[in-house]
Amino acid sequence: EIVEALIRGAGPSSLEGVRVLLTAGPTREPVDPVRFLGNRSSGRMGYALAESLADLGARVVLVSGPTALSMPRVHERIGVETALEMHAAVMSRVADCDLFVATAAVADYRPERPADGKIKKSAEGLTLRLVRNPDILSEVAALDPAPFTVGFAAETERVADYALGKLRDKRLDMIAANLVGGERGGFERDENALSVFWPEGSRDLPMMSKTRLAAELAALIAERYRERHAAST
Amino acid sequence: EIVEALIRGAGPSSLEGVRVLLTAGPTREPVDPVRFLGNRSSGRMGYALAESLADLGARVVLVSGPTALSMPRVHERIGVETALEMHAAVMSRVADCDLFVATAAVADYRPERPADGKIKKSAEGLTLRLVRNPDILSEVAALDPAPFTVGFAAETERVADYALGKLRDKRLDMIAANLVGGERGGFERDENALSVFWPEGSRDLPMMSKTRLAAELAALIAERYRERHAAST
Repeated sequence: EIVEALIRGAGPSSLEGVRVLLTAGPTREPVDPVRFLGNRSSGRMGYALAESLADLGARVVLVSGPTALSMPRVHERIGVETALEMHAAVMSRVADCDLFVATAAVADYRPERPADGKIKKSAEGLTLRLVRNPDILSEVAALDPAPFTVGFAAETERVADYALGKLRDKRLDMIAANLVGGERGGFERDENALSVFWPEGSRDLPMMSKTRLAAELAALIAERYRERHAAST
Repeated sequence: EIVEALIRGAGPSSLEGVRVLLTAGPTREPVDPVRFLGNRSSGRMGYALAESLADLGARVVLVSGPTALSMPRVHERIGVETALEMHAAVMSRVADCDLFVATAAVADYRPERPADGKIKKSAEGLTLRLVRNPDILSEVAALDPAPFTVGFAAETERVADYALGKLRDKRLDMIAANLVGGERGGFERDENALSVFWPEGSRDLPMMSKTRLAAELAALIAERYRERHAAST
């Protein structure tokens, strides 16, 4: 049994000594001091995954957008609000990580020029000009050397197509994809299901609680991470 | 002491038997199934005021946008998400209320045509066309007969000017105004200060906890409500 425990400690699921940088939650993009563009990410899946990776022995630094969640059991939590702030926090820490996991629902666009004062309602219509935010995940995956990089994809349709496209185009090591906006879990729900893809394979994790799903996904990430490291040494 | 209690029960602060309809929280206006336009209202001031009015004997129906708050001590809570849903909920109940209090930070504008599927990021820029939402407070104040109507104004500048303008233009019975977006309380904070205006006067409620502020504002609303009723009978 002691031997078994030792084997297990160094087995395919251990992340002892591995430094993880993980993003979670939504970002908020100010329109004016009162209004913002947001999204429905609760941060629950990301926080649960951060704890599951810590449970496997990893030292987890969490970069989190605004959520209603309490501090998870991780090494450090850095709070941010906008995509630009999340980008800056990740870029300042990424050189010190072995494994980067991007669960955050980062706003793709932000208002071009947020107003200093509250916009008064006057006109019948209003046009909001948006500009692209940096793509944190792509930037990290393109680093040389890059950490082992895991992305998330929340899609309202054609989940596998879009996820495989992102895996290839962004040169990720893994991507976990799920269907949102329907009745089948995802944002603002306690349950979720994921389809996980990597260059050589895939695995479906069926509908279950986000806590259990996070534990299974963490084990799968650890397995792939260690396999790549075994291959490169 | 019994006499004093009896006098107090029927005194200027009692709302025994008064039916209150109160809105609170932000609204969320969908851009697509994942993204929305939101605002920084936590709902705390509104929920605290709902409880303070209930403490004075009122039967409070709360129409609430999405908040992280637990069910307050009120008669009924109706949950809504968008400004259109809040409008519908208020209009279906307003005939049964004596006192309408609009603390909600209702979005003035909503995306013209929310996308059915998640908008894919592709272009460098994006233009979001917004249209005006109904002005719930103005519509209620313009009813005949209208309930005693109390509005809120969150402003980033010239608080008294804008509040007095709204009091007159919307023909409100009272308006409570505060400065937001600075360091001086308001959205997402535990403390707040209010300037309260009515056609014949005004009162400043200085910076204090939202709970205490809600109790003082409830007493002031009750006083003005009863004064108008005494005048009209």
